[in-house]
Amino acid sequence: MLTTANLPGEVTIWEVGPRDGLQNEKTVIDLGTKLEFLDRLAGAGLRTIEATSFVHPRWVPQLADAADLLAKLERRAGVRYPVLVPNERGLERALAAGVESIAIFASATETFARRNLNRSLDEQFAMFDPVVRRARDEGLEVRAYLSMCFGDPWEGKVPVAQVVRAGKRLLDMGCFQLSLGDTIGVATAGQVEELITAFDSVGALAVHFHDTYGQALANTLAALHCGVSTVDSSAGGLGGCPFAGSATGNLATEDLVWLLDGLGIQHGADLPALVETSVWMAEKLGKPSASRVVTALAAPPR
Amino acid sequence: MLTTANLPGEVTIWEVGPRDGLQNEKTVIDLGTKLEFLDRLAGAGLRTIEATSFVHPRWVPQLADAADLLAKLERRAGVRYPVLVPNERGLERALAAGVESIAIFASATETFARRNLNRSLDEQFAMFDPVVRRARDEGLEVRAYLSMCFGDPWEGKVPVAQVVRAGKRLLDMGCFQLSLGDTIGVATAGQVEELITAFDSVGALAVHFHDTYGQALANTLAALHCGVSTVDSSAGGLGGCPFAGSATGNLATEDLVWLLDGLGIQHGADLPALVETSVWMAEKLGKPSASRVVTALAAPPR
Repeated sequence: MLTTANLPGEVTIWEVGPRDGLQNEKTVIDLGTKLEFLDRLAGAGLRTIEATSFVHPRWVPQLADAADLLAKLERRAGVRYPVLVPNERGLERALAAGVESIAIFASATETFARRNLNRSLDEQFAMFDPVVRRARDEGLEVRAYLSMCFGDPWEGKVPVAQVVRAGKRLLDMGCFQLSLGDTIGVATAGQVEELITAFDSVGALAVHFHDTYGQALANTLAALHCGVSTVDSSAGGLGGCPFAGSATGNLATEDLVWLLDGLGIQHGADLPALVETSVWMAEKLGKPSASRVVTALAAPPR
Repeated sequence: MLTTANLPGEVTIWEVGPRDGLQNEKTVIDLGTKLEFLDRLAGAGLRTIEATSFVHPRWVPQLADAADLLAKLERRAGVRYPVLVPNERGLERALAAGVESIAIFASATETFARRNLNRSLDEQFAMFDPVVRRARDEGLEVRAYLSMCFGDPWEGKVPVAQVVRAGKRLLDMGCFQLSLGDTIGVATAGQVEELITAFDSVGALAVHFHDTYGQALANTLAALHCGVSTVDSSAGGLGGCPFAGSATGNLATEDLVWLLDGLGIQHGADLPALVETSVWMAEKLGKPSASRVVTALAAPPR
């Protein structure tokens, strides 16, 4: 039986729509729209909003305006705006832009490390180590994404011990949080429980689920029951899955909020304001939101 | 923490696509296509397939061919084909068609009982009592759907005690199973746990979730952890929600199968055959499947 008593009383929603969401959307979004998007999300009560990425524009043209965006961003009090930083060059650009919080993006598998970072699974840590050290020396907080934690398009199911080993190296390096990513959306609830409980402690763990196979929210529920209290999500479910033909990508923030509200878990977000924002962004992208909640609340009753 | 040890080892998938799915689809599906649909679902390993409904054709024109369909249906060995029966008149038609398994459709709320059955919450039992008695005298098994178990469009949140009272009356009447329905898809996992554990025993309970707000699979996970071992679902997620503008209705059988496979729960269905069937039916309906799994597996890789 489930025991709601084990659930966290409060959850931090780590909003990734402006970064992970937009970087996977093909329609070009201009700087003004991005700034309005960030402001609307903050206005809707989100307190952690991943703003952009300093990955080379060749790989993520959608976010080539990262420096401009951060220069023009009107930061709201009490809101954290992390940015993704791929390497030392990216960190330099992030420091020049005055960011206070960064995230690095590592792989739990050999093949994806080679394809995404052109490094072996072990070599990636040597690349990240000086980034994390320098960032911390500059007073920044550093989050680590660990991708392909459950399945990998080339390697299939990923062994738990391998994920835990990689995750611990990132935490030992000085990252304050480890976001366990189901990059291709294949995980199921039992796997989630197995992985999370294989770590010594849950305090530094966050989860990042994709809804490619409809499992994102069930996986989130499993993680919450294991004590995880930071959940990544994307307003309107922005961002397709780059490894499947499916249009569904990140867990939608609105669907997460519906679950949290039902469970009585505090999160600080304002659902109608989020829905309004996602409807507005869906118009900019010229396609309907992937969020079930947005679809249901925004549609006229039949 | 979740404990997978409490999960059932085997789950009965109660496939409702041909009945609950099609009755809510506006595109007219001809008899031959329905027969092929039923045969494909049985061929895909499903062992309980709700075939049609004897509700008056005025209310459900899509299923006006129920008698014809049952006359022409080539039943497969080991497959159960229940039909929905609204009242004594419907039961007569079902008996004439030689059915062995029926389902009745009750309401957990006063307003929906009046709107859907033109009876009060209490009066509906007087209507169902002779139906169940006669059906059992004829050797039929009778399932009870209990709708609006979590939220109601007119009454809001539905009290647990009210649902348990109504459910017990249906079981006491002689129904072998009670399917707890979230007719408008608003339930969340904590509510599901609260309702299921309020019954003395879980053995006679099934769950019927709609994905209107993206919660269907998370709710299913909660129910499985409470020991529920019969889950209603609809191939391809057929069937919109009649009380919301949303296109998403029943939990998709394929998404359920993905979860069950991940949890190591036996169910007997063949996922590729189900996906192929849902892609075929989506073409007949002229719109994409609402199932995430169907969308992901049927789409060409990007």
